[in-house]
Amino acid sequence: MQAFSLAIISLCLASDAWAQKPHPCTSPPLLVGSFSAAGPGGKFWSYGKYNYDALGQRVRFFEYGKTKNETFFMDLLMLFQEGVLYEISWETQSCEKMALEESFHPMEVPHNSTFLGQTVIGSSSGHGQGLLVNTWAGEVEEAHAKYMTTVTEHGCLPVSSLYHTEETGWMVISYFDNLIGIEDPQVFFPPPFCQTAKIEGTTNFLKVVF
Amino acid sequence: MQAFSLAIISLCLASDAWAQKPHPCTSPPLLVGSFSAAGPGGKFWSYGKYNYDALGQRVRFFEYGKTKNETFFMDLLMLFQEGVLYEISWETQSCEKMALEESFHPMEVPHNSTFLGQTVIGSSSGHGQGLLVNTWAGEVEEAHAKYMTTVTEHGCLPVSSLYHTEETGWMVISYFDNLIGIEDPQVFFPPPFCQTAKIEGTTNFLKVVF
Repeated sequence: MQAFSLAIISLCLASDAWAQKPHPCTSPPLLVGSFSAAGPGGKFWSYGKYNYDALGQRVRFFEYGKTKNETFFMDLLMLFQEGVLYEISWETQSCEKMALEESFHPMEVPHNSTFLGQTVIGSSSGHGQGLLVNTWAGEVEEAHAKYMTTVTEHGCLPVSSLYHTEETGWMVISYFDNLIGIEDPQVFFPPPFCQTAKIEGTTNFLKVVF
Repeated sequence: MQAFSLAIISLCLASDAWAQKPHPCTSPPLLVGSFSAAGPGGKFWSYGKYNYDALGQRVRFFEYGKTKNETFFMDLLMLFQEGVLYEISWETQSCEKMALEESFHPMEVPHNSTFLGQTVIGSSSGHGQGLLVNTWAGEVEEAHAKYMTTVTEHGCLPVSSLYHTEETGWMVISYFDNLIGIEDPQVFFPPPFCQTAKIEGTTNFLKVVF
């Protein structure tokens, strides 16, 4: 009986130790927040706000930045269930509507990622002074891309991502001011002047953004 | 009397609003932690651990990295009160001892920095999911350098720094796993085989590191 108890305790300890090691995770399904992005050699930088709804497979983001020495403003609405992307121009009150090549990818650490390490941003010495985060790396074979991504240990919220393809070089994206939930559910409706837009061509997310 | 009360309330509100705005701050005087650094175009990267004692004006750090396609390991001890720097080689059990050109600079947001903004890394939606940080920018005229630095709102702990000079280009340094205090006070003593080292030349911190 004692041996049995010991075995149970050992198993509990073993499973506890196993549970201590971070696992790839999925971010909360409803999120709003801000981000900044920077491309190789400072040739590209941007700042923006995103709205993310994994339940409805919808993403809207506003981005302001500079690429190839020109500033740009971009307002994108992606409705993955319908398979369409709207590029919205408020200036000309017009929309480009395109078919989306890819299906919806939730904001997550892919399950085949390699765990690089756990760190505290700031300090664990005082309350409110630190944030426990996990860093992962991996490759997306079909896109010939490498990534390194950092998420919070509690809540799996995005902190930063490094993303590399031959085409884009190394891109670094920092996320901040994330809130769980959607502030304005109407942000996922195309504006009225988009109603008449017809699908013209296909695109994918990265093609539009970079 | 009512007008007087109103004036007092207004003053309290005004001073409270003033207090809300972050002010340049100084990091805790005793700190240990880790850092990673990266230079322009990925030509330089390093990872290291630091020990920082502002009371005794002493810094020790261990750094491992790659520059100009060569890996390096560096163990530096800076004793600013004595005005000396030791570059310690454990492999050859020898030390280079140099006079330090500069005086001690505490880890701080310089008082003439410009406040860029306050953000939450992660999220303020859940406990333990976010970290409140402030970002500042400025110039160090004598070094012809620009910087952008992010510290925690609570505790003024370093999070990241961007530093630019003509010589180095943009360097980004990320700090993590900071703890308040010194784990091993002996880390600020030169190893025994440094006792016989004589001062040879002068240097400054940046010259040695980059």
